[in-house]
Order: sequence, then C-alpha cells, then structure tokens
Amino acid sequence: MINKKTSLVFGIAGGTGSGKTTVANYVLKTVGHEKIAFLPHDAYYRDQTDLTQEERAQVNFDHPSSLETELLIEHITKLRNQETIQLPTYDFKTHSRNQETITIHPQPIIVIEGILIFVEPNLRDLFDLKIYVDTDADIRFIRRLKRDIEERGRTTESVINQYLETVRPMHLEFVEPSKRYASVIIPEGGYNTVALDLIVARIEAMLQE
Amino acid sequence: MINKKTSLVFGIAGGTGSGKTTVANYVLKTVGHEKIAFLPHDAYYRDQTDLTQEERAQVNFDHPSSLETELLIEHITKLRNQETIQLPTYDFKTHSRNQETITIHPQPIIVIEGILIFVEPNLRDLFDLKIYVDTDADIRFIRRLKRDIEERGRTTESVINQYLETVRPMHLEFVEPSKRYASVIIPEGGYNTVALDLIVARIEAMLQE
Repeated sequence: MINKKTSLVFGIAGGTGSGKTTVANYVLKTVGHEKIAFLPHDAYYRDQTDLTQEERAQVNFDHPSSLETELLIEHITKLRNQETIQLPTYDFKTHSRNQETITIHPQPIIVIEGILIFVEPNLRDLFDLKIYVDTDADIRFIRRLKRDIEERGRTTESVINQYLETVRPMHLEFVEPSKRYASVIIPEGGYNTVALDLIVARIEAMLQE
Repeated sequence: MINKKTSLVFGIAGGTGSGKTTVANYVLKTVGHEKIAFLPHDAYYRDQTDLTQEERAQVNFDHPSSLETELLIEHITKLRNQETIQLPTYDFKTHSRNQETITIHPQPIIVIEGILIFVEPNLRDLFDLKIYVDTDADIRFIRRLKRDIEERGRTTESVINQYLETVRPMHLEFVEPSKRYASVIIPEGGYNTVALDLIVARIEAMLQE
C-alpha cells in the first residue's frame, strides 16, 4: 500500500445514538482498515487519576474539556506528516488512561469519530470532509437506553438521569450547534446505505487521485 | 456514449434561494451535460390558459397541485425504459405551456430539480439518491429578493408580499417536512464544494459500474 504525501482527514460527528459509529465501521470495512488511520475522540479522555473518587463523580464527561483534544490535533498533524503515533487507550471504569497504547501508522485516509469533534475550531479546521450524522433525539435516546442496559448492565433510571443531567444539556450546548459546520448531513446514519455509498465513493475517488 | 439498461435518478430539492440550482448546474457541468437528462420540476407547471386573468392571480404556484407531477413521473419512467421524451416549456408571464418542447434522450443519469420533488410519494420513490440543499431561511429570502429585483424587475414590497403570502407558508407546509426523506442534506448548496465533490464522485462511480 502506497502512502501519499499527505493524508485526507474525514470527521464523523453526531449525537449519542445517532449511528455515527455504524457509519465509521461501514467506511472502515468497505474502504479497508489497512488504508485508514482511525482515531476515536473518546480514546483521548483525560486521565482523572489525580482526582478523588468524589471529584471524579463530578466530572462532566460530555463536556469538551474532558477530552485532550490538543493531543488529538498533534496526532492528526503527525500522521499527515507521515509519522507514526501512539493512540491512548482509556479505562472507563477508573477514568484513567491505560499504560498500553495502540501504534497507528500513517495512512492515505484518517478518520476521526466523536460527538464533539466539530466544536473546537482548531480541530474542525483540520478536516477535509465533515460528516454529521443526524437522527431524531427520541430515537437517539432509545438506542442509548437499549445499549446501556444490554451492554453495560445499567438501569433505566440511571440512564435517564445521566441523559437529563449531562448528555442532553451538552448535546444542545455543543453538539447540535456544531452541525452548522458539517460539509454533509446524513439522516439516520448507519441505516442510510445511499449516503454511506456516497462517502465511500468519495474516499475511493481520493485514493485514485 | 453508451446508455445503460437503466438510468440512475438523482433528485435535488431545497427551498427557494437554497442554492439547489447551483448544485444542479455544477453537477451538469462537472459530470457532463451529455451524460445527464435534466428535468426541472418547474417545466411541468400546469397550463392555466383556461382560467380568467382574475382566476390565474388566485393560483398558488408554490402549492404541489400547480405542477403536473404525474407527467414528470411518466417521463422519468420512459427515460428509464430508454425512450425519448418531450420536456414541456412554460411561459411564466401568461402562465401557459408553450407549443415548443425540448427533446430529451435517455441518459445514464437523470437529474430532477425542484422545491417540491420529495413531497409526493409516487415521485419520491423513483429517486436513487435524494439530495436536499439546506440553507438558513433569512439567507434564502435575501437571495430571492436580490434575484427578483435584479432579474425580474420586481419591487421589494411585491417580493415580500409574495414571500409571506405563499412562498413561506408552502415552504413550512411542504418543503421543510420533505427534508426528512433526503438521503443527504447539503448545507449552503452551491458554495459547499466539498459536498459537491461528494455527489460528483458518486455519479462518476456509478457511470463506471
């Protein structure tokens, strides 16, 4: 596989439960993992081990300040300069960064995925294509509720409380307004195969250029 | 140029002043006019010559019923079956259909453009890709105002009156809700070159398939 002189940077954003991860996975699978450097924004959660258990409970993990976006920006810049980076990994139980990192080599395509990736201008300006996956709020909540109950063993009440206390207010304050910066908006996300094929066709055209 | 067994149908919708015509023109120019059968929905305005001058003044030209959508559907179906059609032409001064028609030959790509093309299910279901050009309402009004003053010699007052009496209510009742059926939503239309390149890449991939 031949690396180009510079890489193209795709951003996939959208609220919780919008289907953005399904979009990212479809792109990875269809274009091929080996051509894409994939950096999920939530790998860049800040280490909170310096905080007490009580302080950690107060951290708003849906606020942009909980993510080390400056490190993500540094990594994108390095990958574009054909340098290898170490992707952090995060322990969501202890809210701390693991010792282990994942080696990511430069690739012709860089895909960044996350709820808040179009919020900060310094990150936003790095994207060649900004995709926003837009799904109605009730459907997004239902998907999150099912996922958190099935995969994380949460109760309905705790999912509702977290949603109303931080997820929804942060969505309205940061995520929804960042839609304005999108190059394209994809309704319904991963179920919208027509739109997925549009993105894949663009990536493949870029790879041939 | 080789025609395929069937043609792919692209719909470009969006409110007045959204930039959808700019999107359509960019696609025609970049992909090539000779590969595209282009049918603007407003070529299908119903002939109103049977009505008196007074009755014509009462016609709501922003309502779906003012367009002969059933003829457009018939034409798309014929083009897909590799038959040539006669595109009607319309005299917007007398609100009548001209004698002259434009001969449209079958092509691998059919592009339909119009404000109301995603409103009727029978038409909507014919599209392989539904593009909705989404631009803020104030910007859309400003573009319409400038165009109607510069190109049509209208007064500011008459543009405002028409906008408030029919254009805006029909937009809210028909155009805006039809956005829900789009495969992709393009903010800002013709100025969004990143999105335009996405559409062109998809069309070119289809032409190669």
